[in-house]
This record gives sequence, structure tokens and C-alpha cells, in this order.
Amino acid sequence: MKAAQPLTTVFGQSRSDSTRSAARAEGFDVLDTVESALERAREVDALVVLATPIPAFPQILDTVNRICPTVRLTDVGSIKGIVDDQVAEHAPAARFIGSHPMCGTQFSGWSASSADLFTDAVWVTALTENSAVADWSVVARLALAIGSRVVPADPRAHDDAVARISHLPHLLALTLAQVAQSGGALALALAAGSFADATRVAATRPELIRAMTEPNSEALIGATDELLGLLGVARGSLASSGSLRTLTENGHLARSAYESRSEQLGEFALSGADLIEELQSVGAAGGYVYAIEGDAKDPLVRVRYPDEV
Amino acid sequence: MKAAQPLTTVFGQSRSDSTRSAARAEGFDVLDTVESALERAREVDALVVLATPIPAFPQILDTVNRICPTVRLTDVGSIKGIVDDQVAEHAPAARFIGSHPMCGTQFSGWSASSADLFTDAVWVTALTENSAVADWSVVARLALAIGSRVVPADPRAHDDAVARISHLPHLLALTLAQVAQSGGALALALAAGSFADATRVAATRPELIRAMTEPNSEALIGATDELLGLLGVARGSLASSGSLRTLTENGHLARSAYESRSEQLGEFALSGADLIEELQSVGAAGGYVYAIEGDAKDPLVRVRYPDEV
Repeated sequence: MKAAQPLTTVFGQSRSDSTRSAARAEGFDVLDTVESALERAREVDALVVLATPIPAFPQILDTVNRICPTVRLTDVGSIKGIVDDQVAEHAPAARFIGSHPMCGTQFSGWSASSADLFTDAVWVTALTENSAVADWSVVARLALAIGSRVVPADPRAHDDAVARISHLPHLLALTLAQVAQSGGALALALAAGSFADATRVAATRPELIRAMTEPNSEALIGATDELLGLLGVARGSLASSGSLRTLTENGHLARSAYESRSEQLGEFALSGADLIEELQSVGAAGGYVYAIEGDAKDPLVRVRYPDEV
Repeated sequence: MKAAQPLTTVFGQSRSDSTRSAARAEGFDVLDTVESALERAREVDALVVLATPIPAFPQILDTVNRICPTVRLTDVGSIKGIVDDQVAEHAPAARFIGSHPMCGTQFSGWSASSADLFTDAVWVTALTENSAVADWSVVARLALAIGSRVVPADPRAHDDAVARISHLPHLLALTLAQVAQSGGALALALAAGSFADATRVAATRPELIRAMTEPNSEALIGATDELLGLLGVARGSLASSGSLRTLTENGHLARSAYESRSEQLGEFALSGADLIEELQSVGAAGGYVYAIEGDAKDPLVRVRYPDEV
């Protein structure tokens, strides 16, 4: 990240020589090895942020477990259920709260970093009945400090949601692009806005799409089956009666629900013994955390969520 | 259309009182009835442009056949095969060339008109073995005069292409919006760019989507089945082997083909006895007409199409 005014002490590590050099050149405190970074984390009781691809997690979690087993820990992986399982297996004593900051660009490397990447982004924090308020509030404060909205969610509910709103759209874009291509040069020449929008994410590198979607296969298969069912029914209606009435009306209502999703949010303050459960309800209702006050173990959490809930 | 410098004599008719008033207020020559407009068209050998919804065509074509049976005629309907059939049945002597200017906005009425709506738009002209060069060149010159690229295409090939690149994307947007909605408020709250892009056209009014897609059911069912097949195979691969390799790689290549579709176009000039057939080939290859010179019956047609064809 480009050097903004630091809110607290930050140090980091990357296995890339050029990233370490570039970060140091901008004044950041960068360690040479993961081990030395984790040792320092243990000494200062840091919050460790894992920001590698998910397949690398088991190995690095073993290192965490060896060097700083009870460290405060989060990650930025795009699937949350599987990461909870990995942490339970490889670093079971870590004070872990999974994260999914839902922002990013198609670029990678230090030069792609940006101090305002997280501004107004949705930052999901994964909460289960085993989550500790003190661990969560540290992660949530980091997200809030860099401008994000914190959405608390059960890890499996998160995975189901992203299958529907991100992973399935990728599959559809990839499929639709092929259906157009098999229509030949005329079809591609006639393609305009609706096609460009619908297939934009098919331009993403295949390995990135696979890394995102394949680990979420269970939820993605469920969402895909739901789509295949709805589309099959519409196809049948078109073939038998020539009508797309049900699909067009229900689809229009669903898109309207999306467009009006953030209307009429009320502001509330939460605290006390049932906080984790209440936070999960806020996320499930389409709400988010916008501020945290007070002590990490017993915070006052300010949230916005739909009034009518 | 807002009054640009007129290239030739233009007159029109609308059944809407407010549209007629508004057009007259901007200096356009507007007749009170379809009948009087068609009588004038017969007197001056005008090119009549039908710009009503397709379901209204049979009735208005009957009126054309009664008042000016051999008039020069085009339309701007989004399906071309069915319109060819309607003209053959209801106005068989008309010198007809179907059109599909692929532009427009979500707004309607006179206030939504714009003099640059057609600039750089793709304007499909439907050509069959029965099409006359003299009729086509008049329609194509109109399209070129207002800034469009003229894509010649067989009417059924056009309908297949738009099923793939426009109608199917609408069906997918409508379906995907429902799959997201059934994920509840959390899913909608997490939805971001890829979902917004993929479902944008689901915001279109249901009756407009139906009017566009239902008349093209044959081609649309074919395109839908192709998508269902490809997506079903990908789903099976994900379930059995956990891999989306084939889908991601082929989909990425297909999107790349779309992005590079207009690279390396060569410029050529066409004329002579086989012009209609050659124009169809230009469209099928992803090319278009950018200028017409000379006599309407024996024009020199300047085209751009991929060099390697």
C-alpha cells in the first residue's frame, strides 16, 4: 500500500524480492523471512494478516503454529469455510477471525497497491459460535481504520453468498462468451453493451478464476443447479407457450431488490454477551458495522441495517 | 430526432398527439395520419421506415399494401426473419429491405430522441437472394448518412447472432438476479461489480424484454440449449474432479476473440452482379460497409472486413 499516514505500527513480509525492495523504498518496515516476521508478531502481540493464495495456507499456518501459536490472526482469502477448517487443523490455538475484503483490481504486485483500495469496500468478517469478541474487534477496527464497511457473516453463509453473486457470474460470463463465439464473426460483430457487460469478467486470467471458484465448489454447484433449474423452466415455457413472462417479471423484481438493497437502513448500537450472535444477524439482514467504540473485549458496536428487520 | 442539418427531404407520422406536436415544434414535417403519409410516400417514391413494435407490423403492412404497394420500405425491428415473412404475406410487392439499427436507450418518446443516436452504431441490413441492390443501397445510404456502419446479413443469421449476444444475455441476467435474491440480504449486500454488470439488463422493463426475445424463440432456444449444455458440462467437471479448467480456458479465449474482433480489418471495394452475395459474406466475416458511391442500381460499395478471410 502506498504510504498513507500510519494509524499504528505496521510491518510486513513478502517472498518477492522486488516487493520487499519497493516497500522499503517507500519507508515500510519489511522483514526478510516469514519466520522473523512471525517472531516479531509474537513479541508485540500483533495482528497477523495472511495475504497469500489459499492453497499456500496450510504450510504457512504450520509455521504460525510453530512460532506464534496463539497469535491474533486473520486472512484475506475469498472463501471462508475452508479457511476456518484449515486453521482448526493447522493452527488451532490461533486467535483467528477470517476476513474477506471484497475489493481489488485485475493488477497484482506492489505497483498495483493503493491507499484507498479499501475505502467503502465491503470487508466480511467470518464469525462462528467459537469466535471471541476481543479477536473480532481487532480485525474489525483494522478494516474500519482503512475505510471499509464491516459485514459480519457465518463463514458458510458467506461462501454461499459469494457463489451466487461472484463465482456463478464468472461461470456464466465464460459460458456466454463461448456461445457467442460459436455464432461466428457476425455474432461478435453485432455484440454490444449487454454482451460486453455480461462477459467482462471472462477476461480475467483463467488461473485466477479457478483459484477463486474451485475451492468453493460445494456452494457453487448449488448455485449453478439453481440457475440451471430456473433457466430450464424458462426455456420450457418459451418452447411450449412462447412466453417468458415468469422469468422477466421475477428477474426484474430480483434486480430491483438488489438496486434498493441499501435503502432505509437504521442505525443501532450493540454490546453485551450476545454480541457475536447479534452481529451475525446484522450481516444476514444486509447490514454492516460502521464504528466500534470502547474496550476490545466489551466494545460498543455501531451498526446500520434495514429498519424493517 | 432533434433537427440536425437535413440531408434530404424527411417527413413522418406518429399516432401519438404529443409526438406529432413536439416534432412540428422543432420544424419537422409531420402528417396527421398513416394513410396520408403513405400517400405522400407513393407520390415522391420515398423510403418508408416502419418504426413501430413488431406486433403492429401486419396491420400497417396491410395499409402499405393498400396505399403504396410497391413503395421502398424498411423497418427497425430487432428480429429480421419474422419481418421478412410478414412482408411477404402482407405487402409482397414492396421493395423491402429489413433493418436493425443496434442502438437505443432505455427511454422512449420524442424527448428521448437524439441526432447522434446512430453515430458509430451497427445498422444491420437484411439481405436474401431476392434482395435488389437498388433497394438495399437506398437503405444503406440512409444508415451511412446518419453515421452508422452497415452490416449486411442473412435475416436468419442475424436472428441467431442476436439470440447469442443480446437475447440470451437478457435471460441470464434475469435468472442470475433471482439466484442472488434467493441467497437473501447477505448475498445482495456482498454483490459488487461482477454482479452489477451481469444483471444490468434485468432492470429493463419486462414487457420490453418479452417483445424483443419472444418473437425470436427458435434461435433463442437454440442458444439457450447450447449454454445449458456447456454449463452442465462445467458443473459436472466441478463436481467430479473439482476442475473448471476447460470452461475457464475456453471462455477466456472466446472473450479474447470478442475483444480482438475488429483488429486487422482490410479495406475493399465491391460492385457487380454478385454484390448481394458478396455483401452477405462481408457481414458473415465480421465486416461492414462504410461508404457507397455511384448509381443506386450499380453502386461501388466500400467495405472493411478481416484481412485473413
